[in-house]
Amino acid sequence: MNKIISFDNVNGILTCEAGCVLENLSTFVENEGFIMPLDLGAKGSCHIGGNISTNAGGLRFIRYGSLHGNVLGLEVVLADGTILDMLTTLRKDNTGYDLKHLFIGSEGSLGVVTKISVLTPAKLSSTNVAFLSCNDYTSCQKLLLAARRSLGEILSAFEFMDHHCIDLAMQHLEGVQNPLPASPYKFYVLVETTGSDESSDKTKLEAFLLRSMEDGLVADGVIAQDISQASNFWRIREGISEASVKVGAVYKYDLSITVEKLYDIVEEMRCRLGDNAEVLGYGHLGDGNLHLNIVSSKYDDNILAQIEPFVYEWTSAQRGSISAEHGLGLMKAEKIHYSKSPEAVQLMASIKKLLDPKSILNPYKVLPQSVL
Amino acid sequence: MNKIISFDNVNGILTCEAGCVLENLSTFVENEGFIMPLDLGAKGSCHIGGNISTNAGGLRFIRYGSLHGNVLGLEVVLADGTILDMLTTLRKDNTGYDLKHLFIGSEGSLGVVTKISVLTPAKLSSTNVAFLSCNDYTSCQKLLLAARRSLGEILSAFEFMDHHCIDLAMQHLEGVQNPLPASPYKFYVLVETTGSDESSDKTKLEAFLLRSMEDGLVADGVIAQDISQASNFWRIREGISEASVKVGAVYKYDLSITVEKLYDIVEEMRCRLGDNAEVLGYGHLGDGNLHLNIVSSKYDDNILAQIEPFVYEWTSAQRGSISAEHGLGLMKAEKIHYSKSPEAVQLMASIKKLLDPKSILNPYKVLPQSVL
Repeated sequence: MNKIISFDNVNGILTCEAGCVLENLSTFVENEGFIMPLDLGAKGSCHIGGNISTNAGGLRFIRYGSLHGNVLGLEVVLADGTILDMLTTLRKDNTGYDLKHLFIGSEGSLGVVTKISVLTPAKLSSTNVAFLSCNDYTSCQKLLLAARRSLGEILSAFEFMDHHCIDLAMQHLEGVQNPLPASPYKFYVLVETTGSDESSDKTKLEAFLLRSMEDGLVADGVIAQDISQASNFWRIREGISEASVKVGAVYKYDLSITVEKLYDIVEEMRCRLGDNAEVLGYGHLGDGNLHLNIVSSKYDDNILAQIEPFVYEWTSAQRGSISAEHGLGLMKAEKIHYSKSPEAVQLMASIKKLLDPKSILNPYKVLPQSVL
Repeated sequence: MNKIISFDNVNGILTCEAGCVLENLSTFVENEGFIMPLDLGAKGSCHIGGNISTNAGGLRFIRYGSLHGNVLGLEVVLADGTILDMLTTLRKDNTGYDLKHLFIGSEGSLGVVTKISVLTPAKLSSTNVAFLSCNDYTSCQKLLLAARRSLGEILSAFEFMDHHCIDLAMQHLEGVQNPLPASPYKFYVLVETTGSDESSDKTKLEAFLLRSMEDGLVADGVIAQDISQASNFWRIREGISEASVKVGAVYKYDLSITVEKLYDIVEEMRCRLGDNAEVLGYGHLGDGNLHLNIVSSKYDDNILAQIEPFVYEWTSAQRGSISAEHGLGLMKAEKIHYSKSPEAVQLMASIKKLLDPKSILNPYKVLPQSVL
């Protein structure tokens, strides 16, 4: 199940089997002058079928959007053994209901994805990365808006980290240096651009940085001068999860909240926990996606009781999502009500019963047992 | 039902009622520095609820993709009167099945869309339009690939027309001039770029045009020097449908076919029909979407018998779509099998029966009566 079936190199449409490893697909399409529309830390081991079943997000989401927009066709095996052939390679097809979306993000509970066709964007030649610091969260938000305005079509990442993340990364990640060591700042932002014109892209990023400093949004900032410096910037952002684990115990939450309120939960959590644990806030700010990691030397039921169900109740009250990109799985199936209305959960259960009446596909996951 | 409910001007997220007219929404978000992710000829009269129910495509599709990628949330009223609240404004939410996709493009047959939240891209300051000619269809294809490579992230339209379209437009549209009158060419291409940097964007388009001429892909070409010239270019492309109607009878087909084979059906149809009718091929080449218009002085059953079912059988054999963006409605409900497998149609029928057991929502449309 790991074969590439075809590649249309005029339109950048890849058709392959579900067992292909994401990184192998990336390498294949890059040789043809295209890139995969998603990129994840786990790319070396994750399968494209799993990416689709879990509606994986990742680092290119702000630029290329969700798999619901990029997947063109699927072949799926249903619970009764029927092979559902929806494997078109068309960008547009308005004949009947677009069934493939039912299988994107349903965690294998409605059918098993076996083949995929996906749109791959053209590979662009120029990438630039800047590492910036802000004195407060309001500045981070304003900086995001300014980046959308002035970097426009070349913006390809806007990641933020609070200083707790940076401190932890510096302490626990080998060979990593703080690009802005001069003084401690409250927030750090990684901005990446990807475009087709090296000199104009760099000029644009430099002008953006200069203007943001003049406007007082950015306290300090540096643009990577080579690939190794750019890798160091990304290593900090991508290493926060790894650094968290080294402390001992980590309670991880993956929340979607409107950008305006996104940092409030981090501060509230810090007040609740006091000295009992350290609270880290970081994530894909451009997508309104907060990774909230709470770290302590060892697991402690009292800490967990301070966090849950508070974190879910708070997110629910903001109409946020308690799982932005990680899915519900076994651990959060019973928590779906925090993010979905009873009517929606009921309809999901009806669809599950229609497609898998004996509940043989990934049982106990995604939906609460009470509705099945 | 025509109220704007909210607008998040950091993230460009619009929430509104389903009865808002697309053009009014465009004007509203443009004042905030954003644009709607879709644009249609019918924008002055069509409602956003209808756009979503029919999964409208349009002129910005190549750049911003389908509504499945841009719609963030919906409120839908089901056949039994249940209000299904899926009206989130989150970019990422992996909690349970993403039900909203069932209602995008199902032509109102599963529920009535009442509220919408949609992601609007940042408005960019610089637009450039070029009108080019090619001597053969292979050059049009190569030009598309070259445009994706060298215009990259600023490419916002790639429309093609054969010379029959241009001749008809010149004959029937008032005040329209052929931008390349010197000699007759076989094919014409409209290329649009949208970006954030006027001078660099224009330089890029000029370099692309020059290189394409040197490489022999483009026979002749001109870049619009002002808005009025750009409007004239677009008027030709958008006026083909209007010009077709003026001939008398028009048989219209909206097909998705891989770009490589897309023009074959136009040529085959021309051979079949000979002098009985004129065959026009044009459309969104960048999306693999052909508009095939067959015009004659009056409706004639013999002409129709020459066209159908041939056009559907041919498209089906190419694994194309017999309705790229127009939907199935009443006229094509029985023709769904040309583009969808029996298993897929069966599953659509099961979902229809689950959501609307009495078939009260848009009856006789989308699905064949035989499966309901």
